[in-house]
Amino acid sequence: MKMDQYYLNGQILPAAEARLHVSDLGLLRAYGIFDYFRAIERQPIFLEDHLDRFERSAALLGLVIPATRDELRNLVYELSRRNPHALLGFKFVLTGGYSTDGFGPAAEPNFIIMPKPFRFLDAPAGLHFMTVGHQRQLFEVKSLDYLMPIYTLRRQREIGADDVLYHHNGLITESSRSNVFIVKDGIVVTPSAGMLLGITRKHVMKIADDRFTVEEREVTLAETCAADEVFTTGSTKRVLPVTRIDGRPVGSGRPGPVTQQLTQMFLEYERELLTNVPARS
Amino acid sequence: MKMDQYYLNGQILPAAEARLHVSDLGLLRAYGIFDYFRAIERQPIFLEDHLDRFERSAALLGLVIPATRDELRNLVYELSRRNPHALLGFKFVLTGGYSTDGFGPAAEPNFIIMPKPFRFLDAPAGLHFMTVGHQRQLFEVKSLDYLMPIYTLRRQREIGADDVLYHHNGLITESSRSNVFIVKDGIVVTPSAGMLLGITRKHVMKIADDRFTVEEREVTLAETCAADEVFTTGSTKRVLPVTRIDGRPVGSGRPGPVTQQLTQMFLEYERELLTNVPARS
Repeated sequence: MKMDQYYLNGQILPAAEARLHVSDLGLLRAYGIFDYFRAIERQPIFLEDHLDRFERSAALLGLVIPATRDELRNLVYELSRRNPHALLGFKFVLTGGYSTDGFGPAAEPNFIIMPKPFRFLDAPAGLHFMTVGHQRQLFEVKSLDYLMPIYTLRRQREIGADDVLYHHNGLITESSRSNVFIVKDGIVVTPSAGMLLGITRKHVMKIADDRFTVEEREVTLAETCAADEVFTTGSTKRVLPVTRIDGRPVGSGRPGPVTQQLTQMFLEYERELLTNVPARS
Repeated sequence: MKMDQYYLNGQILPAAEARLHVSDLGLLRAYGIFDYFRAIERQPIFLEDHLDRFERSAALLGLVIPATRDELRNLVYELSRRNPHALLGFKFVLTGGYSTDGFGPAAEPNFIIMPKPFRFLDAPAGLHFMTVGHQRQLFEVKSLDYLMPIYTLRRQREIGADDVLYHHNGLITESSRSNVFIVKDGIVVTPSAGMLLGITRKHVMKIADDRFTVEEREVTLAETCAADEVFTTGSTKRVLPVTRIDGRPVGSGRPGPVTQQLTQMFLEYERELLTNVPARS
């Protein structure tokens, strides 16, 4: 089988050859950003949203993306062609570059694109979330800092949880790599601040708005635990039910009707997008 | 000039060749630790303290150092021999390794030792600190996460500050890469929690105890700004006065007598250590 191809600082090369010198500031100091999106049959999903966010993250950290929007799009299509997987996830990483003093960002960042086949996560019985008192620093930036969720992985595995639910000052924010919604009395609610603005979150809010009342506001941990339904949204998760928090059932303990409807609505919405955007050659 | 030699996963190699694949979890997720210490004329300073801390950090993140304590010591002496600089700083970095799913740590970590010449920082007029509301996550671990201090570098440079002073819930914790002490009415005080336990901090507390009352307790930001003297301690700083905070003078605005005495005492303490520990060949 042909080896997957990555992009590194202006070059497309076999994945195994994509290496950075150890003076990279992403490695030494966690100074860098990324973004992640999916392509289905060579059609990237929500590409412009992801590129918007990637550009916003870069600007907030003062990093300059060494490519125009057009060049980024073309790289995605070129890498889709060279990595012929039906489901291809794209990870963009941009770091502070090779720092001379091990602290200050370099003039030139390091820019990597890693396309890799992925599978959609499924959770027919729903996910089990473990609560963790934490707030992601610089949450507007999709930064490389995932120290906390990987640190808590061991505890998470011990209690058999699938992921975390962050809360801070009594309010929930997000999971480790996805956003969180609650449903109470038919109203769909999601936190308004303190978390990364997910792309799937944005589109789920849009489609939910057609059928439900949607509120974007502060959400307490207490009301989350007392909600009828909880669900999470993310690129590889789409919409997945959360049926347990810290071992206790959410609502009935089974995926709820609103979550199930939104899962279906999102799949249809995505299918429609794919039908309307022809694949590029 | 002969190129500096690094250590990477069992091999000593020219610094320029020390590269990691982009799937390293230190790079992708900031999951890793480091430590840093100095060697003067091939004699490492406080080596055992630093190796103790490196081992503690590794244990807290569930990372296994792929070398015994003896092997680590021998690597330090071997790299000192191969990098003949009068002042040599050693950076140890241990990461979560090459992750297969881009999130979970690998069975094998990546372990790098980067010896590099360094210069002691000097600040005859004292440093200027900028206050930042922040608390380093997992502060017991010397982790790779320095997202916040590098993010605030631009603001720091705008206002002409040399470094940051972190405070959280009204209490000070530390600077970006050094500990903080205050002096009030001849009493030397340093925060007891919320920050990395510095090795220089530990030794400064020990020597200060001979001549002053030393307190390790909660220190408010307010009392720091109203202190007679403030100073900072770290491996490349030793003891340095902090004479301005957010543009306002600390005490007289000049390095104070206790700070000056401790700077001298620390230099003598270090000189004594170097005299008593003969260099290894």
